[in-house]
Amino acid sequence: MFYRVNMATLTITPEDGAAYKGLGGRALTSRIVSAEVDPNAHPLGKLNKLVFATGLLSGTGAPNAGRMSLGAKSPLTGTIKESNVGGAMGHKLGRLGVEAIIVEDLPQDDKTYVLKVDKDGLALIEMPELKGLNIYDTVAKLQAKFGEKVAIGVIGTAGENKMASACVGFTDMEGAPTRQAGRGGLGAVMASKGLKAIVVDDTGANNVSFADEAAFRAGAKKLANALLKHPVTSQGLPTYGTDVLVNTLSEAGGLPTRNFSVGRFEGANNIGGETLHAVCKERGGKTGHACSPGCIIRCSNIYKDAAGNVVTGGLEYESCWSLGADCGIDNLDDIAVLNRMCDDYGVDTIEMGVTLGVAMEAGLAQFGDGKAAIELLKEVGKASPLGRILGAGAAVTGKAFGVRRVPVVKSQAIPAYDPRAVKGIGVTYATTTMGADHTAGYAVAANILGVGGKVDPLSPAGQVELSRNLQIATSFLDSTGLCLFVAFAILDIPEGLDGIVEMCNARYGWNKSLDDYLELGKQVLRDERGFNKAAGFNDDADDLPDFFRSEPLPPHNTVFDVPKEELKSLFNF
Amino acid sequence: MFYRVNMATLTITPEDGAAYKGLGGRALTSRIVSAEVDPNAHPLGKLNKLVFATGLLSGTGAPNAGRMSLGAKSPLTGTIKESNVGGAMGHKLGRLGVEAIIVEDLPQDDKTYVLKVDKDGLALIEMPELKGLNIYDTVAKLQAKFGEKVAIGVIGTAGENKMASACVGFTDMEGAPTRQAGRGGLGAVMASKGLKAIVVDDTGANNVSFADEAAFRAGAKKLANALLKHPVTSQGLPTYGTDVLVNTLSEAGGLPTRNFSVGRFEGANNIGGETLHAVCKERGGKTGHACSPGCIIRCSNIYKDAAGNVVTGGLEYESCWSLGADCGIDNLDDIAVLNRMCDDYGVDTIEMGVTLGVAMEAGLAQFGDGKAAIELLKEVGKASPLGRILGAGAAVTGKAFGVRRVPVVKSQAIPAYDPRAVKGIGVTYATTTMGADHTAGYAVAANILGVGGKVDPLSPAGQVELSRNLQIATSFLDSTGLCLFVAFAILDIPEGLDGIVEMCNARYGWNKSLDDYLELGKQVLRDERGFNKAAGFNDDADDLPDFFRSEPLPPHNTVFDVPKEELKSLFNF
Repeated sequence: MFYRVNMATLTITPEDGAAYKGLGGRALTSRIVSAEVDPNAHPLGKLNKLVFATGLLSGTGAPNAGRMSLGAKSPLTGTIKESNVGGAMGHKLGRLGVEAIIVEDLPQDDKTYVLKVDKDGLALIEMPELKGLNIYDTVAKLQAKFGEKVAIGVIGTAGENKMASACVGFTDMEGAPTRQAGRGGLGAVMASKGLKAIVVDDTGANNVSFADEAAFRAGAKKLANALLKHPVTSQGLPTYGTDVLVNTLSEAGGLPTRNFSVGRFEGANNIGGETLHAVCKERGGKTGHACSPGCIIRCSNIYKDAAGNVVTGGLEYESCWSLGADCGIDNLDDIAVLNRMCDDYGVDTIEMGVTLGVAMEAGLAQFGDGKAAIELLKEVGKASPLGRILGAGAAVTGKAFGVRRVPVVKSQAIPAYDPRAVKGIGVTYATTTMGADHTAGYAVAANILGVGGKVDPLSPAGQVELSRNLQIATSFLDSTGLCLFVAFAILDIPEGLDGIVEMCNARYGWNKSLDDYLELGKQVLRDERGFNKAAGFNDDADDLPDFFRSEPLPPHNTVFDVPKEELKSLFNF
Repeated sequence: MFYRVNMATLTITPEDGAAYKGLGGRALTSRIVSAEVDPNAHPLGKLNKLVFATGLLSGTGAPNAGRMSLGAKSPLTGTIKESNVGGAMGHKLGRLGVEAIIVEDLPQDDKTYVLKVDKDGLALIEMPELKGLNIYDTVAKLQAKFGEKVAIGVIGTAGENKMASACVGFTDMEGAPTRQAGRGGLGAVMASKGLKAIVVDDTGANNVSFADEAAFRAGAKKLANALLKHPVTSQGLPTYGTDVLVNTLSEAGGLPTRNFSVGRFEGANNIGGETLHAVCKERGGKTGHACSPGCIIRCSNIYKDAAGNVVTGGLEYESCWSLGADCGIDNLDDIAVLNRMCDDYGVDTIEMGVTLGVAMEAGLAQFGDGKAAIELLKEVGKASPLGRILGAGAAVTGKAFGVRRVPVVKSQAIPAYDPRAVKGIGVTYATTTMGADHTAGYAVAANILGVGGKVDPLSPAGQVELSRNLQIATSFLDSTGLCLFVAFAILDIPEGLDGIVEMCNARYGWNKSLDDYLELGKQVLRDERGFNKAAGFNDDADDLPDFFRSEPLPPHNTVFDVPKEELKSLFNF
């Protein structure tokens, strides 16, 4: 079922969504946004729409199918945006039979609304007591009102203050808001709609049907077997979490350090997954934590301080890097505090960490000074003028302070792999429809991890083809509700991929081939490219900041040298 | 003669500029930038170049040929930029035979350099005592060192702080820095090169030759006669200055008021040219002031406070509007103070006024509160975090505070004519290569003033053709060193235009037709469009913010409705 929520009239209209049948997740949000949002729209204006969509496999109990998509025109990048999130909500919405919720128009007043979704449908509830609260306090109030078992998506003060780095925080299975639809500032879009939170209660719901349940279970088993067999998904990630990558990337010379000035961090081991694992174990925290129902990878964690109190959860590689190495900070406790603050204010940790790195380059603090970083981040919570600069992200911070080394593509901060040392991911950053985004085509797998083949990370050869194939496949995966990390397994174990195809077919009674699903992935990219073109971006906008091509990165002392003309061929499919 | 000034090596290399022969002013800066600057360059980085160029008629004594061009990639817009300025320098550089000065690379230290130009050539002089000074103090120190008769171009603290609204201030014939190469943040580019000022002394110079001096004089006379005959250039502008437009535009319903929310300002008469003229007369200020040698229009002024002290000079329509009506301020004394502060810090008055209007919409001050505007502007001088937001311009300020009504095109503030009520200028804003810029194709003439024909300002019909023709002609005029205001006369008096053609031919021994010169104008636009395309902007980027198409503007209650497809046809020539 589709629902349109009009914030001007406060009306909710169910639809069958006939025009969008056969789509899910990113395919669905991107199709709706490209079909219904004026590409010239102000992202915080009445013409923009915020779409929540479940994936093709949401609610089914398929392994690792707990993710959902948020879509809109981004206030950070000005491009189309799909922000993909784990946690508990995707599965519940799937069980409720909700395919998409399309939030439209602008409120006529300054009230604070919560959208409640349950088996009886959708309702807007005014909750003025939530106004001005950060995410943890908001979640506590919502749990007090709606019970502990609901799934919650919520914005903090950063969203309310319309900051372009604002995320939407989502609760995990224990009800802690540790998962984020982080990228692209969709928290600000949600705020512009007058929506503080979405609360989903799937009690009594069971709207998931299967065309062929036995075939579905067989497919699910194939995927589960692959995940349980592949060393990355069965050992590396469960034991150490995504943060296991810190030492790997530093060793590879591709861990951006001190605002992308070096590729190897002398403090890497202090903030890497091995240390994180040891600290969690010693203090009674947790690794091997699942963020969403049906997850059998369990790469999340719960981080406690020295006194044994929970500081934060879901402390990921990207956050340990952005709030750590990129700021020269090697103290995991400081990073955990920064991560908690980001989750609480509701800002994307990648954007904020990179922003702090740019601010340090501008002289606002010393690289490596974790306490100073915490003080800077507090300004975001206060929405002081400095906080508004930082909250607007790395590109604005660079512009405000006249910094030359500003690692962004289409105004979105570049994630945790330096494109001079991991060139395949550089191709993805440059060309993806999302602004710099590692998840859009994770070439790190073949460049660094030896998963899905091997492509020399330091050579420009083969990177465009690698990124192209990954971007297509990822666009499909992002449309299923599956966690991207299943890719580690299915890239090496073909039966896992077969299982995904079989699950989709068995769920809907389709008879599609893998090629058909990859065609869907291509169509997603065409939809998104079409939107971005109409928003004013051409092929020449698909490039990295000039310093990546001119400043060699130690220790390899290489530059990004994939020819621009080759980048322009990425979407030739 | 061409000169390359390399700030990394501190070397100056004269060249004959063979590759750029036949070009001047904007044609020259735009050709050099598009040929030599990587369109992907960071505007404050080593790959950008700052070009100073004289026009085809500079130094000749032609009427109103005192202007020159600055060119670079803009830190405000990310596009190519030509910023055109009056004052005393263009004529002196012309007399010295300087066609272009190309400032390249980045300094290796943090020293403060002045570029001295005289009959003996160019020299870089270190003047640490200028660091951190604003423009009026810098000019005073430079005049103390180099004499009162030099022409000076200089940046203030806004430039030193790399603010994207930073201009380059130029001295007028009395040595007051009242003329600005205002738009596009070229002051920040100059700062990035380590250049605080350029000082030009034309003592003993006489490098201007004529292929046919008699023919040149005959042509000059034709232009002079047209200027002395047309009522706008012989009466309106000399008497009241450009500020005469305030009442005209308010009456026409096209004076953007309180951040573009209304098109008519109840306080218009308090800030218009008639009042300005009366106040100047009463206090012993001056109207009918010429800003550059050879000017026979004399639309500038010197503004004094009630005590008879000079506050500012060159108080233009654009500034009275941006710092006045657009902020709801109707006090000319407050506006004069704001104008002086902008000139002193070195920020573009259009960008800053529009930014203050956006800040007022964000709630940082009340519309109409001139004293509060002065306090806000002081933050720019202090380079406080708030000052850095404001100094980065209207687009960044809108983004930082989550404002929906942000009147910019390609991140440059829209000038003093609302495109909903003056649709021809709206076409120019949307399509020009410069970001929103009224001078690129001043359709106000035919839309409102009845000069150069008549095109109904409220109808979408004919506006694209009008703007196209003006943009072509203007690109040529901007290449001559002539003041754009000669257009008022030559649009109605063809002999004046003949005179310009004859002067160019007689100066260089050419035998070009008007069509040849218009072809040069077209080539300028092609060069600039080519650069912008390679910088990532496509035809779809040529549009106005969505509110102009959706929010009707009182009193006419019209929206901007020139179809996007028609906008895309503008450069079909």
